[in-house]
Amino acid sequence: MDLKEKSIQMHREWNGKLETVSKSPVQTREDLAIAYTPGVAEPCRLIAKDKSLAYTYTIKSNTVAVVSDGSAVLGLGNIGPYAAMPVMEGKCVLFKEFGGINAVPICLDTQDTEEIIQAVKNIAPGFGGINLEDICAPRCFEIESRLKQMLDIPVFHDDQHGTAIVVLAGIINSLRLTGKKKEQCRAVVNGAGSAGIAITKLLLSYGLEHITMCDRHGIIGEGYPDLNWMQQEMVQLTNLEHASGTLADALKGADIFVGVSAPGIVTQEMAASMNQDAILFAMANPVPEIMPDAAKAAGVRIIGTGRSDFPNQVNNVAAFPGIFKGALEGRARQITEEMKLAAAEAIAGLVSDEQLCDEFIMPEAFDPRIAQVVSEAVKAHIPAV
Amino acid sequence: MDLKEKSIQMHREWNGKLETVSKSPVQTREDLAIAYTPGVAEPCRLIAKDKSLAYTYTIKSNTVAVVSDGSAVLGLGNIGPYAAMPVMEGKCVLFKEFGGINAVPICLDTQDTEEIIQAVKNIAPGFGGINLEDICAPRCFEIESRLKQMLDIPVFHDDQHGTAIVVLAGIINSLRLTGKKKEQCRAVVNGAGSAGIAITKLLLSYGLEHITMCDRHGIIGEGYPDLNWMQQEMVQLTNLEHASGTLADALKGADIFVGVSAPGIVTQEMAASMNQDAILFAMANPVPEIMPDAAKAAGVRIIGTGRSDFPNQVNNVAAFPGIFKGALEGRARQITEEMKLAAAEAIAGLVSDEQLCDEFIMPEAFDPRIAQVVSEAVKAHIPAV
Repeated sequence: MDLKEKSIQMHREWNGKLETVSKSPVQTREDLAIAYTPGVAEPCRLIAKDKSLAYTYTIKSNTVAVVSDGSAVLGLGNIGPYAAMPVMEGKCVLFKEFGGINAVPICLDTQDTEEIIQAVKNIAPGFGGINLEDICAPRCFEIESRLKQMLDIPVFHDDQHGTAIVVLAGIINSLRLTGKKKEQCRAVVNGAGSAGIAITKLLLSYGLEHITMCDRHGIIGEGYPDLNWMQQEMVQLTNLEHASGTLADALKGADIFVGVSAPGIVTQEMAASMNQDAILFAMANPVPEIMPDAAKAAGVRIIGTGRSDFPNQVNNVAAFPGIFKGALEGRARQITEEMKLAAAEAIAGLVSDEQLCDEFIMPEAFDPRIAQVVSEAVKAHIPAV
Repeated sequence: MDLKEKSIQMHREWNGKLETVSKSPVQTREDLAIAYTPGVAEPCRLIAKDKSLAYTYTIKSNTVAVVSDGSAVLGLGNIGPYAAMPVMEGKCVLFKEFGGINAVPICLDTQDTEEIIQAVKNIAPGFGGINLEDICAPRCFEIESRLKQMLDIPVFHDDQHGTAIVVLAGIINSLRLTGKKKEQCRAVVNGAGSAGIAITKLLLSYGLEHITMCDRHGIIGEGYPDLNWMQQEMVQLTNLEHASGTLADALKGADIFVGVSAPGIVTQEMAASMNQDAILFAMANPVPEIMPDAAKAAGVRIIGTGRSDFPNQVNNVAAFPGIFKGALEGRARQITEEMKLAAAEAIAGLVSDEQLCDEFIMPEAFDPRIAQVVSEAVKAHIPAV
């Protein structure tokens, strides 16, 4: 049986990958009187007087909503909220298994920005954080930014920031290995959707100075057709040389390539045109922008992909469970740029000097230490209120 | 330690009474490839083609949202969504423990009817049913009725219909015991909020013909001050003799009293004025409209309360887990009047002729057979589409 058949069979058997379980017994009348009526009235009264006690007496302190409108699901595109459920349930499973966090899939029957914002705002009281997932650009930018202003709990679009954090972790270790200086590196990010933009922004925050973004029409700059408002903002921050041309032009002499775009669009010739000790993250899924062996043959030194069957897998699961664990434990109101940078450093730091080599720049996704060190790094960088 | 202290201590220890648990293992790379990417794409694709397969491959088939705006919580009133959480979590615990149903508390940060309707409509794709809880009247009537029209999953306001079903079950067995005929009984329902109105409607559906509703100003009829639209509707269905006067006037010669009102408002004298073999459900919580021993001394034959420390406890937990279990298993689109009547008959039927007596008209709330027989009765009455 191949993977597809096996996945269908298992999903049918599971009939949903999550369940809710009671932490309080209800075997006797007294149990019921404590967990439910009349005893439950007491914690209710306390919370009514002091809202912050919801963190003491309810699941809020350790529960996240995984919210999607199904508009940009994995490689599947706009498949809607019903078909997005298996992905969101899977994400909730990862939250629990890797971060010890309760997570509830909320798939919204709307793709209207205002309705999404209002729905999330309205369900927020019972949750300690909101993980936005698989919402298409540029809608996702406005939704996240507006919700961050409205809510007093962290709102985090994982497709943007989770991806950016793990990519940065990989780049930190690649620079460590090659001795390249971040200020001098020339980086190319291909794909100007939510992930590409968030990666670019975080690399800039980290201290890279020369980043060129590309999309289907080549290098992004003034005059690039049909830029959305967020891409317009990126024009101000990237491509400082005001270059124009194709992706192939951008790659000539580049130190770093990050692809969150489409299968096979980087040729061996393009890879060979990069600078010495080139670093390449080809994260189109399941087929990368260039296959690792082809990139290697073209002279690229460090190669990462999104796949588990090649070295250097760049996998969000290294980031989001620890990020939320730290944010929830530290009761952060937001996940800031500093917290994201600290998370990337923490992930990178798990690879020791002895382990670090071209084929091992990322800790294993299953490394049980990751969520713990990421959460501690995040907690240490929560701003004082 | 008294119950209040114990409840606070336990709620603090639990730090929330629910957790989410994974049904799919994620120990190995292959596990992850089946439950998450890339394998998860297959069930997604199937659901994208046929929405109804969400019932096969996701938690929808066995998951309910317990939705409240915190506007009418237990005896606590309008305490808001944060303080309502312990109650909603408790309800979710009961759904799982008694009905085997996954349930998620959703406490809404709005008390606006339109916003509530939109929020519930928008979160519906991931759920197989909506249990509305502790939403005040008359808002609750419009919210439920509009959502029933919009959604293809059952929407059930438990404060209304759960209460009505268990009260009807008690009345069915009281009539069985006393030999009174439902068509001839004179019933008084005191309290014209959501529970009182739903009880009255279900008793009418069952075949009672003479019902008088009372509220704080006495008998409800034409000219009663400040009736909301739903109470106006009830004026057309009740008090067919166009009586006016006080609750005391209404009770004279009545066969049945159902109180969902306030502590101690039925005096012994009023109870003594009822018909022979009087049936009295005094369900104000925690202090009933009249204490059972006082009612007994006044000559009332059958007495039920909401409390577990007296005989004949009338407890919603006998109804909602089985109702939803049946509705979900039978994939009902709505919970109809026939399904509710069947549920009440099923609950009543669990008390055998040998057991049935003045002090035992209701099955024990913990009777493990209840959810099963209720769900079967409900399933048998799902209308063909």
